[in-house]
Amino acid sequence: MHHNSPLNPQCPIGRSLERVGEWWTIHILREAFLGATRFDQFQKNLGIAPNMLTRRLNALVADGLLEKRPYSTRPLRHEYVLTAAGLDFRPVLWTIMAWGNKHFSPEGLAIQLVDSATGTPAEPQLIDRHSGRPLTWPAFRTVAGPAADARTKSRYPVWPATTPQPTSPTAGSADAADAA
Amino acid sequence: MHHNSPLNPQCPIGRSLERVGEWWTIHILREAFLGATRFDQFQKNLGIAPNMLTRRLNALVADGLLEKRPYSTRPLRHEYVLTAAGLDFRPVLWTIMAWGNKHFSPEGLAIQLVDSATGTPAEPQLIDRHSGRPLTWPAFRTVAGPAADARTKSRYPVWPATTPQPTSPTAGSADAADAA
Repeated sequence: MHHNSPLNPQCPIGRSLERVGEWWTIHILREAFLGATRFDQFQKNLGIAPNMLTRRLNALVADGLLEKRPYSTRPLRHEYVLTAAGLDFRPVLWTIMAWGNKHFSPEGLAIQLVDSATGTPAEPQLIDRHSGRPLTWPAFRTVAGPAADARTKSRYPVWPATTPQPTSPTAGSADAADAA
Repeated sequence: MHHNSPLNPQCPIGRSLERVGEWWTIHILREAFLGATRFDQFQKNLGIAPNMLTRRLNALVADGLLEKRPYSTRPLRHEYVLTAAGLDFRPVLWTIMAWGNKHFSPEGLAIQLVDSATGTPAEPQLIDRHSGRPLTWPAFRTVAGPAADARTKSRYPVWPATTPQPTSPTAGSADAADAA
């Protein structure tokens, strides 16, 4: 799963992808969120080859996203349970789901997020927890943080920003592509 | 890029992963958000083999996430620009970044989101746009939507929810793993 990369080893996106940037891995995590804990549950729901599933589950355990623990001693059987870091992946899954629902579901929504109490459909939006403002570019942008090395600083504005950036929203044009 | 899958073809996460569920593809999109538009820019920043880059760029164009357009006619040269659907991937990238920063950056943050005007670090949070409430489980959950087929309905509660779900938050335990 860990890809030997010429890319920036400091990049938090890269570090996340090292752990989940693989098609099966994200599906395994989704199954875990749907309640699967046992090998045969994952296998049945995903139709994945056992050796592949074993490899992916072990990698998720090694990366601290699943915890492997015995649920039976005779015979010895293990289950796989989401850790705190694994549970924190839920917003990523839900954001991916919202993007897929918006752009790749021309026939309508097959799976959607709702308020559990009322069934009202929810619409995910990313905000800044501190200010409550929508987390959109260019009002917000990525910069080099305190732990940035020279390579990272060469590609991102240095933190804290020395020059205020434009805050008027623009989108849908090539001009929108000059900051992550 | 399009994986032949035994998985649920209706799943919006699966449909998204078909398009971006590959390590290089997400890095290419990130470079596009950082301003890369030309083949040699992507190649230099990513250190990716030209044939691999060509294949990934073509797939992103075919999937409607990048638009290929000429910027020079003699010689004919093309650039790759994020479409509206591609630009909508930014919240996914930022959510992945936040997850990586939280769990896989023990030495501190090398890249982070800030308020463009003030440099104040931002903390991404997912909310429901309609109610303004934090989008967390179990207050919110995934259910089968109006376009769900029998297979999807067999795995998700049918929309609208017929039985109210518990709304008290729990996390970090196996009990938290019974709904996506």
